[in-house]
Amino acid sequence: MSVIYRRVALIGLGLIASSMALAMRRGGLAAEITGYARTAETRDTVRELGFCDQVFDTAAGAVAGADLVVLAVPVGAMSSVMADVAAHLAPGATVTDVGSVKGAVIAAVTPHLPAGVHFVPGHPLAGTEHSGPRAGFAELFDNRWCLLVPIEGTDRAAIDRLRALWQGIGANVDEMDADHHDLVLAVTSHAPHLIAYTMVGVADDLRRVTDSEVIKYSAAGFRDFTRIAASDPTMWRDVFLNNKAATLEILGRFTEELFALQRAIRRGDGDYLHAYFTRTRAIRRGIIDAGQDTDAPDLGRGKRKA
Amino acid sequence: MSVIYRRVALIGLGLIASSMALAMRRGGLAAEITGYARTAETRDTVRELGFCDQVFDTAAGAVAGADLVVLAVPVGAMSSVMADVAAHLAPGATVTDVGSVKGAVIAAVTPHLPAGVHFVPGHPLAGTEHSGPRAGFAELFDNRWCLLVPIEGTDRAAIDRLRALWQGIGANVDEMDADHHDLVLAVTSHAPHLIAYTMVGVADDLRRVTDSEVIKYSAAGFRDFTRIAASDPTMWRDVFLNNKAATLEILGRFTEELFALQRAIRRGDGDYLHAYFTRTRAIRRGIIDAGQDTDAPDLGRGKRKA
Repeated sequence: MSVIYRRVALIGLGLIASSMALAMRRGGLAAEITGYARTAETRDTVRELGFCDQVFDTAAGAVAGADLVVLAVPVGAMSSVMADVAAHLAPGATVTDVGSVKGAVIAAVTPHLPAGVHFVPGHPLAGTEHSGPRAGFAELFDNRWCLLVPIEGTDRAAIDRLRALWQGIGANVDEMDADHHDLVLAVTSHAPHLIAYTMVGVADDLRRVTDSEVIKYSAAGFRDFTRIAASDPTMWRDVFLNNKAATLEILGRFTEELFALQRAIRRGDGDYLHAYFTRTRAIRRGIIDAGQDTDAPDLGRGKRKA
Repeated sequence: MSVIYRRVALIGLGLIASSMALAMRRGGLAAEITGYARTAETRDTVRELGFCDQVFDTAAGAVAGADLVVLAVPVGAMSSVMADVAAHLAPGATVTDVGSVKGAVIAAVTPHLPAGVHFVPGHPLAGTEHSGPRAGFAELFDNRWCLLVPIEGTDRAAIDRLRALWQGIGANVDEMDADHHDLVLAVTSHAPHLIAYTMVGVADDLRRVTDSEVIKYSAAGFRDFTRIAASDPTMWRDVFLNNKAATLEILGRFTEELFALQRAIRRGDGDYLHAYFTRTRAIRRGIIDAGQDTDAPDLGRGKRKA
């Protein structure tokens, strides 16, 4: 592979940025990688880990001379970070982000965007329940999807160059508009996360079952929920606050369905339950066929990196 | 290890029974293993797979002369299966089961129990989303919990012998009473499964997001739900119908918490969300410390067998 950007500035140095840096190094996609993180502790950690060529104490310093700037901070911090760097962006540079919500990020970033700088919103659909720069690894995006959400009128060459970067990082790339993105993600990610958080909270709150019992006898269902519910609290707070309408809509539909199933249980309507569970099983089969997961037995004991 | 039962009869030959047979063979725990399944197709498959010494066309035939009879059928079938075999049980034999609900199974089995036969209800906390005899493997129960739920007055030697079998199979064994078991499992397994089924159903039902989008862009949260929601429909129908009270109680608590979180999202109460998500993260840490899962990155791409 060949160099796609001369200088990539990573603003925010958590799981996603560190994995991007390692994947860009693996593919030789960036001649130079600079970084900035809000806390001195994270900056020192990244200096020690060495996946950035230079770590700056200010976001402005990191973006100077960069032809790609990646905003990899929680969605709620996008506006202030963009305000900090705007005056220091190189003419012709591309700004992208990796936020899980796109409408709100576009609204936060575009008011600060200088003329002659391209903004191509993005969202790699990859992650783990771990956070911080030590959690990153080069394979995180391999064969995952990265969604680009270009704003109308954006320079096609800037979009295609970013697409080439993500492909070099290992991802498949698709494009869609922001509203649709936010609805799709509410279904596939945001609502499921809130539900997992809720169930884990209920278990903790229930006084007749001890925490140690919940933990000891945590069978497959609950264990998978705890994994989801261990994700970064700041990131997820910002997701829900910034994808409010779509998330609340899906949760409303969810509650409606849940009540129907609860009523079937209460009434002893086994046929309804069996038909419902048979239908959901077929969806799982579709996901395996689409190559988004494997069919290996799930023991919840450990999962391969590749 | 040494032989614990001379002849073990497996009634029902799905994932659990086939895994038990393979684990008993691995440990040399049973001199002979017989089996019975309701359909000729399953019986033929098991004859081909060879994990039973003899496969019978009737349950009565399989239990004759057995010193351990394992009822490994869906909870809703326990009563009729027990009625079929009762007259053919050997004096002094132990009957156990592997059902996910214990109160209802005890109520179904004990009326048929002949004098001089021990009944020790059990529940191995292990499984995958796959079902049937081909899904079994010897390591399924390794380092998982098996809960025994003895009825008051049961012969201690019969309980301890079954405990030794499960330990030989690889499991850790605990004892608790049936009501507490059914509440703990409602929290850790039954309610989470219903919630996962519901969320997957909502996704499928949503017309503005295509199935192929849901499948293609299925991020970590949803993918874990589909895995759970792919579990055997008959088994899970019976679980919900037979652990009605505890499941509905937990779902009621769940809905209450979910509404509080929905309100926090609607009001933009970020502090509430952040505090909630921080608390659930700590529970996950407890599960890892308790050895019920590993800390490896979750890519949802494949999971190790051991």
